[in-house]
Amino acid sequence: MPDRLTLLRQSLRALNLTAFLVSSPSHLRYLFGFTGSNGIGLITSNQSFFVTDWRYREQAEQEVHDAEVLSAFRDLFAALKERNLLRVGERLGYESPHLNCAMFAHLRKTFPQIGLTGTQFVVEKIAARKSPEEIDAIRRAIAISARVWDEVLPLIKPGVKESEIAAEMVYRGRKLGADREAFEPIVASGWRSALPHGVSSHKVIQPGDMVLIDFGFVVDGYPSDITRTIAAGQPDKRLKHAYEVVRQANALALARIRPGYKGLEFDMVVRDYMISQGLGEAFNHSLGHGLGIGLHSWPRLGPTSEDQIPVGAVVTIEPGVYLPGVGGVRIEDDVLVTESGGELLTPIPRDLICVA
Amino acid sequence: MPDRLTLLRQSLRALNLTAFLVSSPSHLRYLFGFTGSNGIGLITSNQSFFVTDWRYREQAEQEVHDAEVLSAFRDLFAALKERNLLRVGERLGYESPHLNCAMFAHLRKTFPQIGLTGTQFVVEKIAARKSPEEIDAIRRAIAISARVWDEVLPLIKPGVKESEIAAEMVYRGRKLGADREAFEPIVASGWRSALPHGVSSHKVIQPGDMVLIDFGFVVDGYPSDITRTIAAGQPDKRLKHAYEVVRQANALALARIRPGYKGLEFDMVVRDYMISQGLGEAFNHSLGHGLGIGLHSWPRLGPTSEDQIPVGAVVTIEPGVYLPGVGGVRIEDDVLVTESGGELLTPIPRDLICVA
Repeated sequence: MPDRLTLLRQSLRALNLTAFLVSSPSHLRYLFGFTGSNGIGLITSNQSFFVTDWRYREQAEQEVHDAEVLSAFRDLFAALKERNLLRVGERLGYESPHLNCAMFAHLRKTFPQIGLTGTQFVVEKIAARKSPEEIDAIRRAIAISARVWDEVLPLIKPGVKESEIAAEMVYRGRKLGADREAFEPIVASGWRSALPHGVSSHKVIQPGDMVLIDFGFVVDGYPSDITRTIAAGQPDKRLKHAYEVVRQANALALARIRPGYKGLEFDMVVRDYMISQGLGEAFNHSLGHGLGIGLHSWPRLGPTSEDQIPVGAVVTIEPGVYLPGVGGVRIEDDVLVTESGGELLTPIPRDLICVA
Repeated sequence: MPDRLTLLRQSLRALNLTAFLVSSPSHLRYLFGFTGSNGIGLITSNQSFFVTDWRYREQAEQEVHDAEVLSAFRDLFAALKERNLLRVGERLGYESPHLNCAMFAHLRKTFPQIGLTGTQFVVEKIAARKSPEEIDAIRRAIAISARVWDEVLPLIKPGVKESEIAAEMVYRGRKLGADREAFEPIVASGWRSALPHGVSSHKVIQPGDMVLIDFGFVVDGYPSDITRTIAAGQPDKRLKHAYEVVRQANALALARIRPGYKGLEFDMVVRDYMISQGLGEAFNHSLGHGLGIGLHSWPRLGPTSEDQIPVGAVVTIEPGVYLPGVGGVRIEDDVLVTESGGELLTPIPRDLICVA
C-alpha cells in the first residue's frame, strides 16, 4: 500500500487542489504522529509542514514524522506566511467539518489571494482502509474491552449507581493497559436506557431495569466501540421483545456486511426488518459508523449514506430500540470488512443476561 | 442578577443583532440545560428554540428549559426554516470559534437572505460572572480533587507508571461523586514533565524525576483545574531552582489578582518575574484562563489578552517552567475574583514534596 501522504497527494490531484490544510487533531496524529491538541499541517505537491504553538514545540519535535516542524508564538498561519509556503494561484483544500469559522476567517485574511476549497472526508477515506498494524491495535482495544466486560458484569445489579459502573469500567480498562476511554461510557438504566446517548448519571439501578452499556477503549490511538444491554431482573415484556428484535437485527447486519455496497444499503436492510417488527420509529439512529482514528468516522452506515464500504474498513453495527419512559436496547459490535464479507471482532456474547 | 437569556439579549442589542445562533455544546447546557452533544439554539428578541436530531429528542424534551424544543431527522437548520423563524432582514450572530465551516456553509445555503455576523465570547462573557450556585459547584469539584490528591500522593514513587497514577485519579474522583474528569489528566515524569500538555504515557517514574500532575473533575457541569509537581527523589538542582521560582510566581499572581484589570497585566507581572530569574523563555504558555463551563474560558490571562477580569470570575493561575530534556514544574490554582482581590480556592499545599 502506498504511504499516507502519497495517497493524500493522489486525492488532491483528483480534486484539482495544489495543497491541503489539515486541522483535525486525529488527522494530524494519523499523518504525522502528533498527539497534542493544537496544530495544523500543510501538504503541498512535494513538501509537508507541521505547525504548532509554543506550548507544543518540544512535543512536536519529538513526535512528528514526515513533516518539517514549524512553531509559532500563537498564530499558526503566520508561520506559513513567513516561509512563503502558499503563493498566488495556489488552490488550497481545507477540512470543512474540522475548521471553525474563526480560524477560517483568519486563514482568509492571512492569504487573501489563495483559492480556498472546503472538502469533506479526504483523509477519512484514506484512513478507512486499515493496515494490519491498525487492525491489530483495534483488536487489542477490543480484547481489553472484553476483559473489562467480564470483570464488571458481576457488579451490575439493583442498588448500584450507573456512575459506579462507569467508574469501574474506566479504572479497569486503564489498569489493563488502555491509553484511555474511547469516549465517556454510557451506562443508562431503566427509563434512561431509552436515551440512546445518555452517558451515565448517579441514578441507582432498580429491579427490572434494562441497563444499556456503551463503552470502548483506545490502544495506540485506535478505539473499540461496543454496546451490550442486560436486564437487572425480569424486564417488561415489550423490552424482552425489543431485545429479540435487536439481536436479530444485529445478526442480520453482520450477515449482510460486504465491501462495495453503500452505507444506506446495510442500514435499509436492518431498518426494513425493524419496521416489519413494528419498531421502525423506535430505531431512531443510524445502523453504524466507521471505526478508527476520530472514533466516528467514514464510512457512515445510515439511511442517507452514499459512502461505499471498502475492504479493510472496520465498522460498527449497532441497531437499537428505544421506548420512551420504558427503556431501550442496543447491541453494538465491531466488524472488519473483508473481501468475502464481515469478520466479527467482538467476542462478547449477545444472549440476554438477567442478573439479580 | 438578570437571567441568562435577558443578559444575552442585552448583548445582542449592543452588537446590533436581532437573533443569535448557539452552537457550542457547553453554551447549550449553560442556557438550556441540554447535556447531549448535538444541537443548536436560536434566540430572537422574544423567543428561544432548541433544535436537536432524532437521537436526542427524548433527552431534549426531558432536559431543556427556557426554550421550545424542535427536533429534526438530521438537518437542524431545516427545522428552523420550516417554522419560518428567520426572515429577510434578520441580522443573525453566530459563534465563530464554535461553528465549523461545513455547518456554516449549510447555514448560508439554508438562509441565503439573512445577514450573518461572526461573534466571539458573547456567551462566555455572560458566563464568566458566576452565581453563588456555580461557585459552589466549582468548590465541590475542587474538594473532590483535593481528596483525590491526598489519596493518590502515597502512590507516586519510582517504579510506578504515569498511566497507573492517572487510572487511580480517574477512579477515585468518580467514586467520590464527580461526574467525570474535567480533562484527560496529565501525569508527566522526568523529561516528559518538560512537555506542558503531555497527558500521561506508560513511562515508569524514575528516581529523581519531577512528576507533573494536572487534573480536575466536573461536578454538576463545573470543573476544577489544578496542577502540582512533586519530586520522586532528589531532583536536578536546575529543577529545584525552577520550583522555587514557579512557587514565587504562583504567589505573586495570587497576590495581584483583582477585578478591572486586563488579562495581559497579570500575565506580564509574572512573566517579568520569570525573566528576572532567567526563565522567561522557559515559561512558554499563558498565565491562566477563566474556569467554568467549557473549561478553558473567558477571561484569558495571557500576554496578549485585553479581557477585563470581572468580579465573580474564577480563573486559574498556572505559571510553569520547562527545561527540554531535563524536566518541568507547574503550580496551578483556582482563584475566585472578588471585589477586594482573589480568593484562593485550592487547599492543596504548594511546598516541594520529595517522595522516595
